[in-house]
Amino acid sequence: MLKLYGSSLSGNCLKTKWVAERLGIPFEWIETDVFSGETRTPEFLALNPAGQVPVAVLADGRVLAQSNAIMLHLAEGSPLIPTDVYERAKMFEWLFWEQYSHEPAIAVRIARRFYLKQREEELDPTLLTRGHAALLRMESQLAQSSYLVVNALTLADIALVAYTRVASRGGFDLSPYPSVRRWISRVEADLTLESVASG
Amino acid sequence: MLKLYGSSLSGNCLKTKWVAERLGIPFEWIETDVFSGETRTPEFLALNPAGQVPVAVLADGRVLAQSNAIMLHLAEGSPLIPTDVYERAKMFEWLFWEQYSHEPAIAVRIARRFYLKQREEELDPTLLTRGHAALLRMESQLAQSSYLVVNALTLADIALVAYTRVASRGGFDLSPYPSVRRWISRVEADLTLESVASG
Repeated sequence: MLKLYGSSLSGNCLKTKWVAERLGIPFEWIETDVFSGETRTPEFLALNPAGQVPVAVLADGRVLAQSNAIMLHLAEGSPLIPTDVYERAKMFEWLFWEQYSHEPAIAVRIARRFYLKQREEELDPTLLTRGHAALLRMESQLAQSSYLVVNALTLADIALVAYTRVASRGGFDLSPYPSVRRWISRVEADLTLESVASG
Repeated sequence: MLKLYGSSLSGNCLKTKWVAERLGIPFEWIETDVFSGETRTPEFLALNPAGQVPVAVLADGRVLAQSNAIMLHLAEGSPLIPTDVYERAKMFEWLFWEQYSHEPAIAVRIARRFYLKQREEELDPTLLTRGHAALLRMESQLAQSSYLVVNALTLADIALVAYTRVASRGGFDLSPYPSVRRWISRVEADLTLESVASG
Protein backbone atom coordinates (compact mmCIF):
# COMPACT_ATOMS: atom_id res chain seq x y z
CA MET A 1 0.00 0.00 0.00
CA LEU A 2 1.07 3.59 -0.65
CA LYS A 3 2.74 5.23 2.36
CA LEU A 4 2.72 9.01 2.75
CA TYR A 5 5.21 10.53 5.21
CA GLY A 6 4.01 13.99 6.12
CA SER A 7 3.12 16.57 8.73
CA SER A 8 -0.54 17.46 9.24
CA LEU A 9 0.60 21.05 9.86
CA SER A 10 2.10 21.32 6.34
CA GLY A 11 -0.01 22.31 3.35
CA ASN A 12 2.56 20.67 1.06
CA CYS A 13 1.94 17.36 2.83
CA LEU A 14 -1.85 17.73 3.02
CA LYS A 15 -2.01 18.22 -0.77
CA THR A 16 -0.85 14.65 -1.37
CA LYS A 17 -3.30 13.27 1.22
CA TRP A 18 -6.22 15.16 -0.32
CA VAL A 19 -5.42 13.82 -3.80
CA ALA A 20 -5.23 10.23 -2.54
CA GLU A 21 -8.53 10.67 -0.68
CA ARG A 22 -10.25 12.37 -3.63
CA LEU A 23 -9.21 9.54 -5.97
CA GLY A 24 -9.98 6.73 -3.51
CA ILE A 25 -6.35 5.55 -3.39
CA PRO A 26 -5.74 3.60 -0.14
CA PHE A 27 -2.75 4.89 1.81
CA GLU A 28 -1.05 4.81 5.18
CA TRP A 29 -0.23 8.23 6.66
CA ILE A 30 2.96 8.38 8.70
CA GLU A 31 2.89 11.56 10.78
CA THR A 32 6.35 13.19 10.65
CA ASP A 33 7.20 16.18 12.83
CA VAL A 34 9.25 18.70 10.86
CA PHE A 35 9.89 20.95 13.86
CA SER A 36 11.49 18.26 16.07
CA GLY A 37 14.05 17.10 13.50
CA GLU A 38 12.28 13.91 12.37
CA THR A 39 13.14 14.76 8.74
CA ARG A 40 16.87 14.97 9.60
CA THR A 41 17.40 11.50 11.05
CA PRO A 42 19.65 9.08 9.10
CA GLU A 43 16.60 6.85 8.46
CA PHE A 44 14.61 9.70 6.98
CA LEU A 45 17.53 11.03 4.89
CA ALA A 46 17.97 7.55 3.43
CA LEU A 47 14.36 7.88 2.23
CA ASN A 48 14.70 11.46 0.97
CA PRO A 49 18.22 12.97 0.86
CA ALA A 50 16.61 16.41 0.52
CA GLY A 51 15.32 16.03 4.12
CA GLN A 52 11.83 17.27 3.24
CA VAL A 53 8.29 16.01 3.62
CA PRO A 54 6.09 14.87 2.00
CA VAL A 55 7.64 11.63 0.82
CA ALA A 56 5.66 8.88 -0.88
CA VAL A 57 6.75 5.26 -0.71
CA LEU A 58 4.88 3.60 -3.56
CA ALA A 59 3.33 0.13 -3.30
CA ASP A 60 6.44 -1.38 -4.99
CA GLY A 61 8.76 0.33 -2.44
CA ARG A 62 10.08 3.02 -4.76
CA VAL A 63 10.32 6.52 -3.30
CA LEU A 64 9.07 9.85 -4.61
CA ALA A 65 9.49 13.34 -3.10
CA GLN A 66 8.16 16.85 -3.86
CA SER A 67 4.46 17.46 -3.14
CA ASN A 68 3.55 18.45 -6.69
CA ALA A 69 5.44 15.50 -8.23
CA ILE A 70 3.62 13.12 -5.85
CA MET A 71 0.22 14.66 -6.71
CA LEU A 72 0.96 14.36 -10.44
CA HIS A 73 1.93 10.72 -10.04
CA LEU A 74 -1.15 9.79 -7.99
CA ALA A 75 -3.51 11.71 -10.30
CA GLU A 76 -2.16 10.38 -13.60
CA GLY A 77 -5.08 9.62 -15.91
CA SER A 78 -7.65 11.16 -13.52
CA PRO A 79 -9.93 14.18 -14.11
CA LEU A 80 -7.65 16.23 -11.82
CA ILE A 81 -5.28 16.59 -14.80
CA PRO A 82 -6.84 18.21 -17.90
CA THR A 83 -6.65 16.17 -21.10
CA ASP A 84 -6.49 19.30 -23.26
CA VAL A 85 -2.84 20.03 -24.02
CA TYR A 86 -3.02 23.79 -23.38
CA GLU A 87 -5.10 23.46 -20.21
CA ARG A 88 -2.61 20.91 -18.89
CA ALA A 89 0.22 23.35 -19.66
CA LYS A 90 -1.59 26.09 -17.72
CA MET A 91 -2.02 23.69 -14.80
CA PHE A 92 1.76 23.17 -14.82
CA GLU A 93 2.27 26.95 -14.98
CA TRP A 94 0.27 27.35 -11.74
CA LEU A 95 2.05 24.40 -10.07
CA PHE A 96 5.52 25.84 -10.72
CA TRP A 97 4.36 29.35 -9.85
CA GLU A 98 2.99 28.03 -6.56
CA GLN A 99 6.34 26.59 -5.49
CA TYR A 100 8.29 29.65 -6.66
CA SER A 101 6.10 32.69 -5.92
CA HIS A 102 3.36 31.67 -3.47
CA GLU A 103 4.67 29.04 -1.04
CA PRO A 104 8.00 30.80 -0.23
CA ALA A 105 6.05 33.90 0.91
CA ILE A 106 2.74 32.67 2.33
CA ALA A 107 3.71 29.28 3.75
CA VAL A 108 6.95 30.64 5.16
CA ARG A 109 5.13 33.51 6.92
CA ILE A 110 2.55 31.04 8.33
CA ALA A 111 5.33 28.80 9.67
CA ARG A 112 7.25 31.64 11.31
CA ARG A 113 4.31 33.59 12.70
CA PHE A 114 1.83 30.83 13.63
CA TYR A 115 4.00 27.82 14.47
CA LEU A 116 7.35 29.33 15.47
CA LYS A 117 5.61 32.31 17.20
CA GLN A 118 8.01 34.88 15.76
CA ARG A 119 7.00 38.49 16.39
CA GLU A 120 6.02 40.80 13.51
CA GLU A 121 9.27 42.76 13.82
CA GLU A 122 11.35 39.58 13.43
CA LEU A 123 9.73 38.71 10.10
CA ASP A 124 11.26 39.61 6.72
CA PRO A 125 8.97 42.45 5.51
CA THR A 126 9.17 41.25 1.88
CA LEU A 127 7.18 38.13 2.85
CA LEU A 128 4.06 40.26 3.26
CA THR A 129 4.42 42.20 -0.01
CA ARG A 130 5.33 39.08 -2.00
CA GLY A 131 2.42 37.17 -0.45
CA HIS A 132 -0.08 39.90 -1.31
CA ALA A 133 1.27 40.06 -4.88
CA ALA A 134 0.60 36.32 -5.16
CA LEU A 135 -2.94 36.69 -3.77
CA LEU A 136 -3.64 39.54 -6.20
CA ARG A 137 -2.48 37.36 -9.11
CA MET A 138 -4.93 34.63 -8.00
CA GLU A 139 -7.77 37.13 -7.51
CA SER A 140 -7.27 38.41 -11.05
CA GLN A 141 -7.65 34.88 -12.47
CA LEU A 142 -10.49 33.80 -10.16
CA ALA A 143 -12.55 36.89 -11.02
CA GLN A 144 -12.70 35.34 -14.52
CA SER A 145 -13.07 31.59 -13.88
CA SER A 146 -14.41 29.49 -11.02
CA TYR A 147 -11.20 27.41 -10.82
CA LEU A 148 -7.62 28.38 -11.72
CA VAL A 149 -7.62 26.41 -14.97
CA VAL A 150 -10.95 26.67 -16.79
CA ASN A 151 -13.99 25.63 -14.80
CA ALA A 152 -13.11 22.33 -13.18
CA LEU A 153 -11.06 21.29 -10.19
CA THR A 154 -7.46 20.40 -11.10
CA LEU A 155 -4.22 19.83 -9.20
CA ALA A 156 -3.55 23.58 -9.53
CA ASP A 157 -6.46 24.33 -7.17
CA ILE A 158 -5.43 21.63 -4.69
CA ALA A 159 -1.84 22.89 -4.63
CA LEU A 160 -2.83 26.51 -4.18
CA VAL A 161 -5.67 26.09 -1.71
CA ALA A 162 -3.37 24.34 0.77
CA TYR A 163 -1.76 27.50 2.11
CA THR A 164 -4.22 30.09 0.78
CA ARG A 165 -7.02 28.77 3.04
CA VAL A 166 -4.86 29.30 6.12
CA ALA A 167 -3.23 32.53 4.93
CA SER A 168 -4.73 34.44 7.88
CA ARG A 169 -2.37 32.45 10.14
CA GLY A 170 0.42 34.24 8.28
CA GLY A 171 -1.24 37.60 8.89
CA PHE A 172 -2.72 37.88 5.39
CA ASP A 173 -6.14 39.53 5.39
CA LEU A 174 -8.17 37.93 2.59
CA SER A 175 -10.98 40.51 2.59
CA PRO A 176 -9.58 42.36 -0.48
CA TYR A 177 -9.81 39.09 -2.46
CA PRO A 178 -13.51 38.12 -2.72
CA SER A 179 -13.02 35.77 -5.68
CA VAL A 180 -10.24 33.96 -3.84
CA ARG A 181 -12.51 33.57 -0.78
CA ARG A 182 -15.36 32.11 -2.85
CA TRP A 183 -12.89 29.76 -4.59
CA ILE A 184 -11.54 28.55 -1.21
CA SER A 185 -15.07 27.57 -0.14
CA ARG A 186 -15.67 25.85 -3.49
CA VAL A 187 -12.46 23.80 -3.31
CA GLU A 188 -13.01 22.98 0.38
CA ALA A 189 -16.48 21.67 -0.54
CA ASP A 190 -15.01 19.61 -3.41
CA LEU A 191 -12.45 18.07 -1.07
CA THR A 192 -14.96 17.82 1.81
CA LEU A 193 -12.66 19.82 4.06
CA GLU A 194 -14.01 21.71 7.04
CA SER A 195 -13.58 25.42 6.71
CA VAL A 196 -10.62 26.73 8.75
CA ALA A 197 -11.54 29.21 11.46
CA SER A 198 -9.74 32.45 10.81
CA GLY A 199 -6.75 33.46 12.91
CA MET B 1 5.46 30.67 -35.20
CA LEU B 2 6.33 30.20 -31.52
CA LYS B 3 7.63 33.37 -29.84
CA LEU B 4 9.87 33.16 -26.78
CA TYR B 5 10.29 36.34 -24.71
CA GLY B 6 13.41 35.98 -22.61
CA SER B 7 16.72 37.33 -21.41
CA SER B 8 19.92 35.68 -22.66
CA LEU B 9 21.39 36.31 -19.19
CA SER B 10 18.72 34.14 -17.53
CA GLY B 11 19.11 30.39 -17.22
CA ASN B 12 15.33 30.07 -16.81
CA CYS B 13 14.89 31.67 -20.25
CA LEU B 14 17.72 29.75 -21.92
CA LYS B 15 16.12 26.44 -20.85
CA THR B 16 13.13 27.04 -23.11
CA LYS B 17 15.38 28.09 -26.04
CA TRP B 18 17.55 24.99 -25.68
CA VAL B 19 14.50 22.70 -25.71
CA ALA B 20 13.12 24.35 -28.85
CA GLU B 21 16.53 24.08 -30.55
CA ARG B 22 17.05 20.47 -29.47
CA LEU B 23 13.64 19.46 -30.83
CA GLY B 24 13.93 21.49 -34.04
CA ILE B 25 10.94 23.69 -33.18
CA PRO B 26 11.15 26.99 -35.10
CA PHE B 27 10.85 30.03 -32.85
CA GLU B 28 11.40 33.75 -32.70
CA TRP B 29 13.46 34.96 -29.70
CA ILE B 30 12.46 38.34 -28.31
CA GLU B 31 15.27 39.61 -26.10
CA THR B 32 13.77 41.11 -22.94
CA ASP B 33 15.91 42.97 -20.42
CA VAL B 34 14.86 42.07 -16.87
CA PHE B 35 17.19 44.60 -15.25
CA SER B 36 15.83 47.69 -17.09
CA GLY B 37 12.14 47.06 -16.24
CA GLU B 38 11.04 45.62 -19.60
CA THR B 39 9.06 42.94 -17.75
CA ARG B 40 7.11 45.60 -15.80
CA THR B 41 5.64 47.59 -18.71
CA PRO B 42 1.84 47.49 -19.19
CA GLU B 43 2.36 45.63 -22.51
CA PHE B 44 4.46 42.94 -20.86
CA LEU B 45 2.14 42.60 -17.84
CA ALA B 46 -0.78 42.07 -20.25
CA LEU B 47 1.19 39.10 -21.60
CA ASN B 48 2.23 37.74 -18.21
CA PRO B 49 0.62 39.30 -15.11
CA ALA B 50 3.36 37.70 -13.00
CA GLY B 51 5.87 40.06 -14.68
CA GLN B 52 8.42 37.31 -15.26
CA VAL B 53 10.32 35.91 -18.24
CA PRO B 54 10.34 33.54 -20.01
CA VAL B 55 6.96 33.83 -21.68
CA ALA B 56 5.95 31.73 -24.67
CA VAL B 57 3.37 32.95 -27.17
CA LEU B 58 2.29 29.81 -28.96
CA ALA B 59 1.61 29.67 -32.70
CA ASP B 60 -2.15 30.13 -32.03
CA GLY B 61 -1.49 33.25 -29.90
CA ARG B 62 -2.13 31.65 -26.52
CA VAL B 63 0.32 32.52 -23.76
CA LEU B 64 2.26 30.31 -21.38
CA ALA B 65 4.61 31.31 -18.55
CA GLN B 66 6.99 29.49 -16.17
CA SER B 67 10.17 28.02 -17.69
CA ASN B 68 9.49 24.44 -16.66
CA ALA B 69 5.84 24.56 -17.85
CA ILE B 70 7.02 25.91 -21.23
CA MET B 71 9.67 23.17 -21.53
CA LEU B 72 7.09 20.49 -20.68
CA HIS B 73 4.70 21.83 -23.30
CA LEU B 74 7.33 22.03 -26.06
CA ALA B 75 8.73 18.60 -25.24
CA GLU B 76 5.41 16.73 -25.01
CA GLY B 77 5.78 13.34 -26.73
CA SER B 78 9.55 13.76 -27.22
CA PRO B 79 12.39 11.63 -25.75
CA LEU B 80 13.13 14.48 -23.30
CA ILE B 81 10.20 13.21 -21.20
CA PRO B 82 10.51 9.57 -20.07
CA THR B 83 7.63 7.29 -21.06
CA ASP B 84 8.09 5.12 -17.95
CA VAL B 85 5.64 6.35 -15.30
CA TYR B 86 8.10 6.26 -12.39
CA GLU B 87 10.95 7.83 -14.36
CA ARG B 88 8.61 10.62 -15.44
CA ALA B 89 7.61 11.17 -11.80
CA LYS B 90 11.29 11.43 -10.82
CA MET B 91 11.80 13.98 -13.60
CA PHE B 92 9.00 16.05 -12.08
CA GLU B 93 10.57 15.66 -8.63
CA TRP B 94 13.80 17.24 -9.96
CA LEU B 95 11.91 20.00 -11.82
CA PHE B 96 10.01 21.11 -8.70
CA TRP B 97 13.11 20.73 -6.53
CA GLU B 98 15.04 22.91 -8.98
CA GLN B 99 12.57 25.79 -8.65
CA TYR B 100 12.29 25.44 -4.87
CA SER B 101 15.75 24.46 -3.60
CA HIS B 102 18.32 25.18 -6.34
CA GLU B 103 17.30 28.28 -8.32
CA PRO B 104 16.42 30.49 -5.29
CA ALA B 105 19.95 29.98 -3.93
CA ILE B 106 22.26 29.55 -6.93
CA ALA B 107 20.53 31.73 -9.55
CA VAL B 108 19.82 34.45 -6.99
CA ARG B 109 23.47 34.55 -5.89
CA ILE B 110 24.62 34.70 -9.54
CA ALA B 111 22.25 37.61 -10.24
CA ARG B 112 23.33 39.60 -7.19
CA ARG B 113 27.06 38.93 -7.37
CA PHE B 114 27.74 38.76 -11.11
CA TYR B 115 25.09 41.04 -12.66
CA LEU B 116 24.17 43.45 -9.86
CA LYS B 117 27.81 43.54 -8.60
CA GLN B 118 26.86 43.27 -4.94
CA ARG B 119 29.76 42.75 -2.58
CA GLU B 120 30.16 39.50 -0.60
CA GLU B 121 29.18 41.22 2.66
CA GLU B 122 25.90 42.46 1.15
CA LEU B 123 24.80 38.91 0.23
CA ASP B 124 22.52 36.80 2.41
CA PRO B 125 24.95 34.19 3.82
CA THR B 126 22.31 31.43 3.63
CA LEU B 127 22.46 31.60 -0.19
CA LEU B 128 25.91 29.98 -0.11
CA THR B 129 25.00 27.20 2.33
CA ARG B 130 21.72 26.44 0.57
CA GLY B 131 23.45 26.44 -2.82
CA HIS B 132 26.13 24.01 -1.66
CA ALA B 133 23.47 21.74 -0.15
CA ALA B 134 21.77 21.67 -3.56
CA LEU B 135 25.05 20.88 -5.35
CA LEU B 136 25.80 18.08 -2.88
CA ARG B 137 22.36 16.57 -3.53
CA MET B 138 23.10 16.57 -7.28
CA GLU B 139 26.58 15.12 -6.75
CA SER B 140 25.11 12.27 -4.75
CA GLN B 141 22.74 11.36 -7.62
CA LEU B 142 25.25 11.92 -10.43
CA ALA B 143 27.84 9.68 -8.75
CA GLN B 144 25.31 6.90 -9.45
CA SER B 145 23.89 7.75 -12.88
CA SER B 146 25.14 9.71 -15.89
CA TYR B 147 21.98 11.87 -16.00
CA LEU B 148 19.65 12.90 -13.17
CA VAL B 149 16.91 10.47 -14.18
CA VAL B 150 18.35 7.14 -15.33
CA ASN B 151 20.85 7.30 -18.17
CA ALA B 152 19.35 9.57 -20.77
CA LEU B 153 18.96 13.32 -21.16
CA THR B 154 15.61 14.61 -19.86
CA LEU B 155 14.12 18.00 -19.03
CA ALA B 156 15.49 17.56 -15.50
CA ASP B 157 19.06 17.86 -16.82
CA ILE B 158 18.22 20.85 -19.03
CA ALA B 159 16.51 22.66 -16.12
CA LEU B 160 19.34 22.00 -13.70
CA VAL B 161 22.29 22.60 -15.99
CA ALA B 162 21.10 26.15 -16.75
CA TYR B 163 22.41 27.69 -13.53
CA THR B 164 24.75 24.91 -12.40
CA ARG B 165 27.09 25.46 -15.38
CA VAL B 166 27.52 29.13 -14.41
CA ALA B 167 27.52 28.55 -10.64
CA SER B 168 31.08 29.97 -10.40
CA ARG B 169 29.59 33.38 -11.26
CA GLY B 170 27.71 33.07 -7.98
CA GLY B 171 30.94 32.24 -6.15
CA PHE B 172 30.27 28.49 -6.01
CA ASP B 173 33.44 26.45 -6.40
CA LEU B 174 32.51 23.23 -8.23
CA SER B 175 35.77 21.37 -7.54
CA PRO B 176 34.23 19.31 -4.68
CA TYR B 177 31.63 17.98 -7.15
CA PRO B 178 33.44 15.91 -9.82
CA SER B 179 30.33 14.03 -10.96
CA VAL B 180 28.45 17.31 -11.39
CA ARG B 181 31.34 18.71 -13.47
CA ARG B 182 31.40 15.65 -15.76
CA TRP B 183 27.60 15.84 -16.12
CA ILE B 184 27.78 19.56 -17.07
CA SER B 185 30.19 18.69 -19.92
CA ARG B 186 27.94 15.81 -21.02
CA VAL B 187 24.79 17.96 -21.11
CA GLU B 188 26.63 20.87 -22.80
CA ALA B 189 27.77 18.43 -25.51
CA ASP B 190 24.21 17.09 -25.91
CA LEU B 191 22.88 20.64 -26.31
CA THR B 192 25.92 21.73 -28.39
CA LEU B 193 26.62 24.56 -25.93
CA GLU B 194 30.06 26.06 -25.65
CA SER B 195 31.59 25.49 -22.26
CA VAL B 196 31.35 28.57 -20.02
CA ALA B 197 34.72 29.96 -18.93
CA SER B 198 34.85 29.97 -15.15
CA GLY B 199 34.48 33.22 -13.26
